[in-house]
Amino acid sequence: MVVKVYVDWRSQPCRSLIIFLKNTKIPFEIETITLKDGIHKKPEFVKMNPLCTVPAIQDGDFGMGETVAIIRYLATKYADLVPDHWYPKDLEKRARVDEYMAFHHTGTRGGCGGIFFSEIAMPFLSGGKQHASEERLKTDTENLTKQLDKLENAFLQDNDWLAGDDISVADVLAVSEMMQNTINGRDVTEGRPKLKAFVDRVTNRLNPIFDEVHAVLFEFRANYKK
Amino acid sequence: MVVKVYVDWRSQPCRSLIIFLKNTKIPFEIETITLKDGIHKKPEFVKMNPLCTVPAIQDGDFGMGETVAIIRYLATKYADLVPDHWYPKDLEKRARVDEYMAFHHTGTRGGCGGIFFSEIAMPFLSGGKQHASEERLKTDTENLTKQLDKLENAFLQDNDWLAGDDISVADVLAVSEMMQNTINGRDVTEGRPKLKAFVDRVTNRLNPIFDEVHAVLFEFRANYKK
Repeated sequence: MVVKVYVDWRSQPCRSLIIFLKNTKIPFEIETITLKDGIHKKPEFVKMNPLCTVPAIQDGDFGMGETVAIIRYLATKYADLVPDHWYPKDLEKRARVDEYMAFHHTGTRGGCGGIFFSEIAMPFLSGGKQHASEERLKTDTENLTKQLDKLENAFLQDNDWLAGDDISVADVLAVSEMMQNTINGRDVTEGRPKLKAFVDRVTNRLNPIFDEVHAVLFEFRANYKK
Repeated sequence: MVVKVYVDWRSQPCRSLIIFLKNTKIPFEIETITLKDGIHKKPEFVKMNPLCTVPAIQDGDFGMGETVAIIRYLATKYADLVPDHWYPKDLEKRARVDEYMAFHHTGTRGGCGGIFFSEIAMPFLSGGKQHASEERLKTDTENLTKQLDKLENAFLQDNDWLAGDDISVADVLAVSEMMQNTINGRDVTEGRPKLKAFVDRVTNRLNPIFDEVHAVLFEFRANYKK
Protein backbone atom coordinates (compact mmCIF):
# COMPACT_ATOMS: atom_id res chain seq x y z
CA MET A 1 0.00 0.00 0.00
CA VAL A 2 1.27 3.42 -0.98
CA VAL A 3 0.95 6.46 1.31
CA LYS A 4 -0.66 9.38 -0.50
CA VAL A 5 1.02 12.66 0.46
CA TYR A 6 -0.71 15.98 -0.28
CA VAL A 7 1.74 18.82 -0.74
CA ASP A 8 1.88 22.41 -1.89
CA TRP A 9 5.47 23.00 -2.93
CA ARG A 10 5.37 26.56 -1.59
CA SER A 11 5.01 25.17 1.94
CA GLN A 12 8.14 24.63 4.05
CA PRO A 13 6.69 21.70 6.04
CA CYS A 14 5.63 20.00 2.80
CA ARG A 15 9.16 20.25 1.47
CA SER A 16 10.55 18.89 4.76
CA LEU A 17 8.26 15.88 4.68
CA ILE A 18 9.15 15.04 1.07
CA ILE A 19 12.90 15.40 1.73
CA PHE A 20 12.49 12.98 4.64
CA LEU A 21 10.45 10.50 2.59
CA LYS A 22 12.89 10.58 -0.33
CA ASN A 23 15.62 9.55 2.10
CA THR A 24 13.66 6.46 3.16
CA LYS A 25 12.18 3.45 1.40
CA ILE A 26 8.65 4.26 2.56
CA PRO A 27 6.29 3.72 -0.41
CA PHE A 28 4.59 7.04 -1.15
CA GLU A 29 3.10 9.06 -3.98
CA ILE A 30 2.80 12.82 -4.15
CA GLU A 31 -0.50 14.58 -4.81
CA THR A 32 0.38 18.18 -5.63
CA ILE A 33 -2.23 20.73 -4.62
CA THR A 34 -2.26 24.52 -4.59
CA LEU A 35 -3.68 26.11 -1.45
CA LYS A 36 -4.90 29.13 -3.40
CA ASP A 37 -7.21 26.83 -5.39
CA GLY A 38 -8.99 25.94 -2.13
CA ILE A 39 -8.75 22.16 -2.53
CA HIS A 40 -7.82 21.88 1.16
CA LYS A 41 -11.32 23.12 2.05
CA LYS A 42 -13.23 20.57 -0.04
CA PRO A 43 -15.08 17.76 1.82
CA GLU A 44 -12.71 14.98 0.71
CA PHE A 45 -9.68 16.87 2.04
CA VAL A 46 -11.43 17.99 5.24
CA LYS A 47 -12.34 14.37 5.96
CA MET A 48 -8.66 13.39 5.70
CA ASN A 49 -7.40 16.39 7.68
CA PRO A 50 -10.02 18.57 9.44
CA LEU A 51 -7.30 21.17 10.11
CA CYS A 52 -7.26 21.86 6.33
CA THR A 53 -3.49 22.19 6.31
CA VAL A 54 -0.69 20.75 4.22
CA PRO A 55 1.06 18.43 4.27
CA ALA A 56 -1.56 15.77 4.91
CA ILE A 57 -1.44 12.05 4.30
CA GLN A 58 -3.95 9.36 3.43
CA ASP A 59 -2.66 5.93 4.42
CA GLY A 60 -5.42 3.45 3.59
CA ASP A 61 -8.36 4.45 5.80
CA PHE A 62 -6.21 6.65 8.02
CA GLY A 63 -5.77 10.34 7.28
CA MET A 64 -3.87 12.96 9.26
CA GLY A 65 -2.12 16.32 9.21
CA GLU A 66 0.71 18.05 11.09
CA THR A 67 4.20 17.40 9.70
CA VAL A 68 6.04 16.29 12.83
CA ALA A 69 3.19 13.96 13.78
CA ILE A 70 3.14 12.54 10.25
CA ILE A 71 6.90 11.92 10.41
CA ARG A 72 6.51 10.09 13.73
CA TYR A 73 3.62 7.99 12.43
CA LEU A 74 5.44 6.98 9.25
CA ALA A 75 8.82 6.43 10.95
CA THR A 76 7.08 4.12 13.46
CA LYS A 77 4.94 2.22 10.96
CA TYR A 78 7.78 1.77 8.47
CA ALA A 79 10.61 1.58 11.01
CA ASP A 80 12.58 -0.92 8.91
CA LEU A 81 12.48 1.34 5.86
CA VAL A 82 13.89 4.43 7.58
CA PRO A 83 17.65 4.70 8.26
CA ASP A 84 17.82 5.05 12.03
CA HIS A 85 19.59 8.42 12.20
CA TRP A 86 16.60 10.25 10.69
CA TYR A 87 14.45 9.51 13.76
CA PRO A 88 16.44 7.27 16.14
CA LYS A 89 14.81 4.39 18.00
CA ASP A 90 17.09 4.78 21.03
CA LEU A 91 15.09 6.44 23.82
CA GLU A 92 17.46 9.31 24.64
CA LYS A 93 18.46 9.96 21.03
CA ARG A 94 14.80 10.13 20.02
CA ALA A 95 14.07 12.44 22.95
CA ARG A 96 16.67 14.89 21.57
CA VAL A 97 14.98 14.94 18.16
CA ASP A 98 11.55 15.28 19.83
CA GLU A 99 12.92 18.13 21.95
CA TYR A 100 13.99 20.03 18.85
CA MET A 101 10.72 19.23 17.05
CA ALA A 102 8.76 20.69 19.98
CA PHE A 103 10.96 23.82 19.92
CA HIS A 104 10.64 24.06 16.15
CA HIS A 105 7.02 25.32 15.96
CA THR A 106 7.48 28.62 17.77
CA GLY A 107 11.30 28.52 17.55
CA THR A 108 12.81 28.23 14.08
CA ARG A 109 9.45 28.28 12.29
CA GLY A 110 8.07 31.00 14.55
CA GLY A 111 11.12 33.20 14.05
CA CYS A 112 11.75 32.66 10.34
CA GLY A 113 8.08 32.33 9.38
CA GLY A 114 6.98 35.46 11.25
CA ILE A 115 9.33 37.80 9.43
CA PHE A 116 8.74 35.95 6.14
CA PHE A 117 5.02 36.57 6.46
CA SER A 118 5.44 40.26 7.24
CA GLU A 119 8.16 41.00 4.68
CA ILE A 120 7.11 38.80 1.79
CA ALA A 121 3.81 36.90 2.12
CA MET A 122 1.59 39.76 3.30
CA PRO A 123 2.49 42.19 0.49
CA PHE A 124 2.59 39.37 -2.08
CA LEU A 125 -0.75 37.79 -1.17
CA SER A 126 -2.51 41.17 -1.08
CA GLY A 127 -1.13 42.18 -4.45
CA GLY A 128 0.96 44.90 -2.84
CA LYS A 129 -2.00 46.40 -0.94
CA GLN A 130 -1.01 45.31 2.56
CA HIS A 131 2.27 45.95 4.32
CA ALA A 132 3.32 45.08 7.86
CA SER A 133 3.53 48.02 10.26
CA GLU A 134 6.86 49.18 11.68
CA GLU A 135 5.76 47.82 15.06
CA ARG A 136 5.07 44.40 13.63
CA LEU A 137 8.36 44.28 11.71
CA LYS A 138 10.19 45.23 14.91
CA THR A 139 8.46 42.47 16.90
CA ASP A 140 9.17 39.95 14.13
CA THR A 141 12.83 40.97 13.92
CA GLU A 142 13.30 40.72 17.69
CA ASN A 143 11.69 37.30 17.75
CA LEU A 144 13.80 36.12 14.80
CA THR A 145 16.98 37.18 16.62
CA LYS A 146 15.87 35.43 19.81
CA GLN A 147 15.12 32.14 18.06
CA LEU A 148 18.25 32.16 15.87
CA ASP A 149 20.35 32.81 18.98
CA LYS A 150 18.90 29.63 20.49
CA LEU A 151 19.99 27.67 17.44
CA GLU A 152 23.49 29.21 17.50
CA ASN A 153 24.08 29.14 21.25
CA ALA A 154 22.05 26.18 22.52
CA PHE A 155 21.38 23.55 19.86
CA LEU A 156 24.55 24.07 17.79
CA GLN A 157 26.89 25.12 20.60
CA ASP A 158 28.87 21.87 20.63
CA ASN A 159 27.13 20.00 17.84
CA ASP A 160 27.25 19.66 14.08
CA TRP A 161 23.55 18.72 14.00
CA LEU A 162 20.55 20.02 15.92
CA ALA A 163 19.82 16.76 17.70
CA GLY A 164 22.50 14.13 18.04
CA ASP A 165 25.63 13.09 16.18
CA ASP A 166 24.15 12.65 12.70
CA ILE A 167 21.57 14.35 10.50
CA SER A 168 17.93 13.87 11.54
CA VAL A 169 14.48 15.17 10.66
CA ALA A 170 15.20 18.06 13.06
CA ASP A 171 17.83 19.44 10.67
CA VAL A 172 15.57 19.05 7.64
CA LEU A 173 12.71 20.91 9.33
CA ALA A 174 14.99 23.75 10.44
CA VAL A 175 16.77 24.39 7.15
CA SER A 176 13.52 24.22 5.17
CA GLU A 177 12.20 27.13 7.23
CA MET A 178 15.37 29.17 6.81
CA MET A 179 15.25 28.79 3.02
CA GLN A 180 12.00 30.75 2.94
CA ASN A 181 13.86 33.89 4.06
CA THR A 182 16.28 33.73 1.13
CA ILE A 183 13.46 34.88 -1.17
CA ASN A 184 14.08 38.54 -0.41
CA GLY A 185 17.77 38.01 0.23
CA ARG A 186 17.59 37.90 4.03
CA ASP A 187 20.51 35.81 5.33
CA VAL A 188 19.43 34.47 8.71
CA THR A 189 22.90 32.99 9.24
CA GLU A 190 24.61 36.42 9.12
CA GLY A 191 26.80 36.91 12.17
CA ARG A 192 26.15 33.34 13.30
CA PRO A 193 29.11 31.22 12.13
CA LYS A 194 27.82 27.93 13.56
CA LEU A 195 24.42 28.36 11.97
CA LYS A 196 26.02 29.30 8.65
CA ALA A 197 28.23 26.19 8.62
CA PHE A 198 25.24 24.12 9.71
CA VAL A 199 23.02 25.25 6.82
CA ASP A 200 25.81 24.43 4.34
CA ARG A 201 26.37 21.06 6.04
CA VAL A 202 22.68 20.12 5.85
CA THR A 203 22.09 21.27 2.28
CA ASN A 204 25.27 19.50 1.08
CA ARG A 205 24.21 16.31 2.81
CA LEU A 206 20.69 16.49 1.40
CA ASN A 207 21.60 17.27 -2.19
CA PRO A 208 20.60 16.61 -4.95
CA ILE A 209 17.21 15.98 -3.27
CA PHE A 210 17.30 19.33 -1.45
CA ASP A 211 17.51 21.38 -4.65
CA GLU A 212 14.94 19.24 -6.46
CA VAL A 213 12.39 19.74 -3.69
CA HIS A 214 13.13 23.48 -3.58
CA ALA A 215 12.67 24.01 -7.34
CA VAL A 216 9.38 25.91 -6.87
CA LEU A 217 10.93 28.12 -4.19
CA PHE A 218 13.99 28.85 -6.34
CA GLU A 219 11.71 29.83 -9.23
CA PHE A 220 9.63 32.06 -6.97
CA ARG A 221 12.83 33.65 -5.63
CA ALA A 222 14.15 34.34 -9.12
CA ASN A 223 10.87 36.02 -10.11
CA TYR A 224 10.68 37.94 -6.82
CA LYS A 225 14.02 39.60 -7.54
CA LYS A 226 12.64 40.96 -10.81
CA MET B 1 15.60 6.28 40.45
CA VAL B 2 13.40 9.33 40.77
CA VAL B 3 12.92 11.83 37.93
CA LYS B 4 13.60 15.38 39.09
CA VAL B 5 11.10 17.82 37.56
CA TYR B 6 11.82 21.57 37.59
CA VAL B 7 8.66 23.64 37.58
CA ASP B 8 7.51 27.20 38.00
CA TRP B 9 3.84 26.94 38.99
CA ARG B 10 2.99 30.06 37.02
CA SER B 11 3.82 28.18 33.79
CA GLN B 12 1.03 26.39 31.94
CA PRO B 13 3.29 23.65 30.48
CA CYS B 14 4.69 22.99 33.98
CA ARG B 15 1.20 22.48 35.34
CA SER B 16 0.33 20.19 32.42
CA LEU B 17 3.37 18.01 33.01
CA ILE B 18 2.65 17.67 36.73
CA ILE B 19 -1.02 16.82 36.12
CA PHE B 20 0.12 14.11 33.71
CA LEU B 21 2.72 12.75 36.15
CA LYS B 22 0.27 12.70 39.06
CA ASN B 23 -2.00 10.49 36.96
CA THR B 24 0.78 7.93 36.46
CA LYS B 25 2.98 5.84 38.73
CA ILE B 26 6.19 7.38 37.35
CA PRO B 27 8.52 8.10 40.29
CA PHE B 28 9.21 11.85 40.33
CA GLU B 29 9.98 14.70 42.67
CA ILE B 30 9.23 18.35 42.11
CA GLU B 31 11.88 21.06 42.33
CA THR B 32 10.02 24.36 42.45
CA ILE B 33 11.85 27.29 40.89
CA THR B 34 10.80 30.85 40.13
CA LEU B 35 11.82 32.14 36.72
CA LYS B 36 12.09 35.69 37.97
CA ASP B 37 14.90 34.56 40.31
CA GLY B 38 16.93 33.60 37.24
CA ILE B 39 17.76 30.06 38.37
CA HIS B 40 17.04 28.83 34.82
CA LYS B 41 20.06 30.79 33.61
CA LYS B 42 22.56 29.34 36.10
CA PRO B 43 25.16 26.84 34.78
CA GLU B 44 23.63 23.79 36.48
CA PHE B 45 20.24 24.45 34.89
CA VAL B 46 21.70 25.37 31.50
CA LYS B 47 23.59 22.08 31.46
CA MET B 48 20.32 20.19 32.02
CA ASN B 49 18.34 22.27 29.52
CA PRO B 50 20.29 24.71 27.30
CA LEU B 51 16.99 26.26 26.21
CA CYS B 52 16.66 27.63 29.77
CA THR B 53 12.94 26.90 29.84
CA VAL B 54 10.59 25.18 32.26
CA PRO B 55 9.56 22.50 32.72
CA ALA B 56 12.83 20.60 32.52
CA ILE B 57 13.74 17.18 33.83
CA GLN B 58 16.87 15.52 35.14
CA ASP B 59 16.63 11.74 34.88
CA GLY B 60 19.94 10.33 36.08
CA ASP B 61 22.55 11.66 33.64
CA PHE B 62 19.93 12.70 31.12
CA GLY B 63 18.45 16.20 31.14
CA MET B 64 15.97 17.75 28.75
CA GLY B 65 13.35 20.44 28.21
CA GLU B 66 10.19 20.92 26.09
CA THR B 67 6.99 19.60 27.67
CA VAL B 68 5.61 17.44 24.87
CA ALA B 69 9.04 15.85 24.30
CA ILE B 70 9.37 15.20 28.05
CA ILE B 71 5.94 13.55 28.11
CA ARG B 72 6.92 11.30 25.20
CA TYR B 73 10.24 10.38 26.79
CA LEU B 74 8.69 9.52 30.16
CA ALA B 75 5.65 7.74 28.69
CA THR B 76 8.03 5.58 26.64
CA LYS B 77 10.55 4.87 29.38
CA TYR B 78 7.89 4.13 32.00
CA ALA B 79 5.29 2.66 29.61
CA ASP B 80 4.04 0.17 32.21
CA LEU B 81 3.43 2.92 34.78
CA VAL B 82 1.26 5.10 32.52
CA PRO B 83 -2.41 4.16 31.92
CA ASP B 84 -2.58 3.72 28.15
CA HIS B 85 -5.21 6.37 27.38
CA TRP B 86 -2.88 9.22 28.42
CA TYR B 87 -0.54 8.52 25.50
CA PRO B 88 -1.75 5.41 23.66
CA LYS B 89 0.67 2.79 22.35
CA ASP B 90 -1.55 1.93 19.36
CA LEU B 91 -0.03 3.52 16.24
CA GLU B 92 -3.07 5.40 14.96
CA LYS B 93 -4.31 6.43 18.40
CA ARG B 94 -0.88 7.79 19.25
CA ALA B 95 -0.75 9.61 15.92
CA ARG B 96 -3.96 11.45 16.85
CA VAL B 97 -2.43 12.63 20.15
CA ASP B 98 0.80 13.59 18.35
CA GLU B 99 -1.25 15.47 15.75
CA TYR B 100 -2.90 17.57 18.47
CA MET B 101 0.42 18.08 20.30
CA ALA B 102 1.97 19.42 17.09
CA PHE B 103 -1.00 21.77 16.60
CA HIS B 104 -0.88 22.82 20.25
CA HIS B 105 2.25 25.05 20.09
CA THR B 106 0.93 27.67 17.68
CA GLY B 107 -2.71 26.54 18.02
CA THR B 108 -4.18 26.54 21.52
CA ARG B 109 -1.03 27.85 23.16
CA GLY B 110 -0.39 30.36 20.39
CA GLY B 111 -3.95 31.69 20.54
CA CYS B 112 -4.50 31.72 24.30
CA GLY B 113 -0.91 32.61 25.20
CA GLY B 114 -0.67 35.49 22.74
CA ILE B 115 -3.63 37.42 24.14
CA PHE B 116 -2.64 36.47 27.70
CA PHE B 117 0.78 38.02 27.16
CA SER B 118 -0.63 41.23 25.69
CA GLU B 119 -3.52 41.66 28.14
CA ILE B 120 -1.96 40.43 31.36
CA ALA B 121 1.73 39.51 31.32
CA MET B 122 3.11 42.58 29.54
CA PRO B 123 1.48 45.16 31.86
CA PHE B 124 2.10 42.97 34.93
CA LEU B 125 5.78 42.22 34.24
CA SER B 126 6.53 45.87 33.45
CA GLY B 127 4.82 47.10 36.60
CA GLY B 128 2.11 48.78 34.54
CA LYS B 129 4.59 50.63 32.31
CA GLN B 130 4.04 48.66 29.12
CA HIS B 131 0.75 48.01 27.36
CA ALA B 132 0.09 46.24 24.08
CA SER B 133 -0.87 48.48 21.16
CA GLU B 134 -4.35 48.37 19.66
CA GLU B 135 -2.83 46.76 16.58
CA ARG B 136 -1.26 43.99 18.61
CA LEU B 137 -4.43 43.33 20.61
CA LYS B 138 -6.36 43.11 17.33
CA THR B 139 -3.88 40.59 15.88
CA ASP B 140 -3.94 38.56 19.10
CA THR B 141 -7.74 38.54 19.21
CA GLU B 142 -8.02 37.46 15.58
CA ASN B 143 -5.52 34.65 16.13
CA LEU B 144 -7.29 33.53 19.31
CA THR B 145 -10.59 33.29 17.41
CA LYS B 146 -8.95 31.35 14.59
CA GLN B 147 -7.36 28.80 16.93
CA LEU B 148 -10.43 28.35 19.15
CA ASP B 149 -12.55 27.79 16.04
CA LYS B 150 -10.24 24.91 15.13
CA LEU B 151 -10.82 23.34 18.53
CA GLU B 152 -14.61 23.81 18.26
CA ASN B 153 -15.04 22.86 14.60
CA ALA B 154 -12.24 20.40 13.89
CA PHE B 155 -10.93 18.62 17.00
CA LEU B 156 -14.19 18.63 19.00
CA GLN B 157 -16.63 18.42 16.11
CA ASP B 158 -17.64 14.80 16.76
CA ASN B 159 -15.52 14.06 19.82
CA ASP B 160 -15.65 14.44 23.58
CA TRP B 161 -11.83 14.60 23.74
CA LEU B 162 -9.28 16.30 21.52
CA ALA B 163 -7.58 13.09 20.39
CA GLY B 164 -9.43 9.78 20.64
CA ASP B 165 -12.21 8.30 22.74
CA ASP B 166 -10.75 8.98 26.20
CA ILE B 167 -8.82 11.72 27.96
CA SER B 168 -5.16 12.08 26.94
CA VAL B 169 -2.24 14.44 27.46
CA ALA B 170 -3.67 16.49 24.56
CA ASP B 171 -6.64 17.52 26.71
CA VAL B 172 -4.44 18.37 29.69
CA LEU B 173 -2.18 20.59 27.59
CA ALA B 174 -5.12 22.41 26.02
CA VAL B 175 -7.10 23.16 29.17
CA SER B 176 -3.99 24.29 31.07
CA GLU B 177 -3.47 26.99 28.43
CA MET B 178 -7.10 28.11 28.56
CA MET B 179 -6.97 28.52 32.35
CA GLN B 180 -4.42 31.29 31.94
CA ASN B 181 -7.04 33.49 30.28
CA THR B 182 -9.40 33.26 33.25
CA ILE B 183 -7.07 35.57 35.21
CA ASN B 184 -8.66 38.69 33.76
CA GLY B 185 -12.04 37.03 33.34
CA ARG B 186 -11.73 36.23 29.64
CA ASP B 187 -13.91 33.21 28.86
CA VAL B 188 -12.41 31.60 25.77
CA THR B 189 -15.32 29.14 25.61
CA GLU B 190 -17.92 31.90 25.12
CA GLY B 191 -20.08 31.16 22.09
CA ARG B 192 -18.43 27.77 21.66
CA PRO B 193 -20.71 25.17 23.28
CA LYS B 194 -18.51 22.16 22.48
CA LEU B 195 -15.42 23.82 23.88
CA LYS B 196 -17.31 24.90 26.99
CA ALA B 197 -18.57 21.37 27.69
CA PHE B 198 -15.08 20.05 26.94
CA VAL B 199 -13.36 22.28 29.49
CA ASP B 200 -15.87 21.21 32.16
CA ARG B 201 -15.42 17.56 31.16
CA VAL B 202 -11.62 17.75 31.43
CA THR B 203 -11.48 19.68 34.71
CA ASN B 204 -14.05 17.36 36.31
CA ARG B 205 -12.12 14.33 35.17
CA LEU B 206 -8.82 15.74 36.44
CA ASN B 207 -10.00 16.92 39.84
CA PRO B 208 -8.95 17.11 42.64
CA ILE B 209 -5.47 17.14 41.02
CA PHE B 210 -6.45 19.91 38.59
CA ASP B 211 -7.31 22.40 41.34
CA GLU B 212 -4.29 21.45 43.47
CA VAL B 213 -1.91 22.10 40.57
CA HIS B 214 -3.66 25.39 39.76
CA ALA B 215 -3.47 26.74 43.34
CA VAL B 216 -0.83 29.36 42.42
CA LEU B 217 -2.84 30.48 39.40
CA PHE B 218 -6.04 30.74 41.45
CA GLU B 219 -4.22 32.85 44.05
CA PHE B 220 -2.76 35.09 41.33
CA ARG B 221 -6.24 35.44 39.80
CA ALA B 222 -7.80 36.40 43.13
CA ASN B 223 -5.13 39.08 43.68
CA TYR B 224 -5.38 40.28 40.06
CA LYS B 225 -9.08 41.09 40.55
CA LYS B 226 -8.20 43.36 43.45
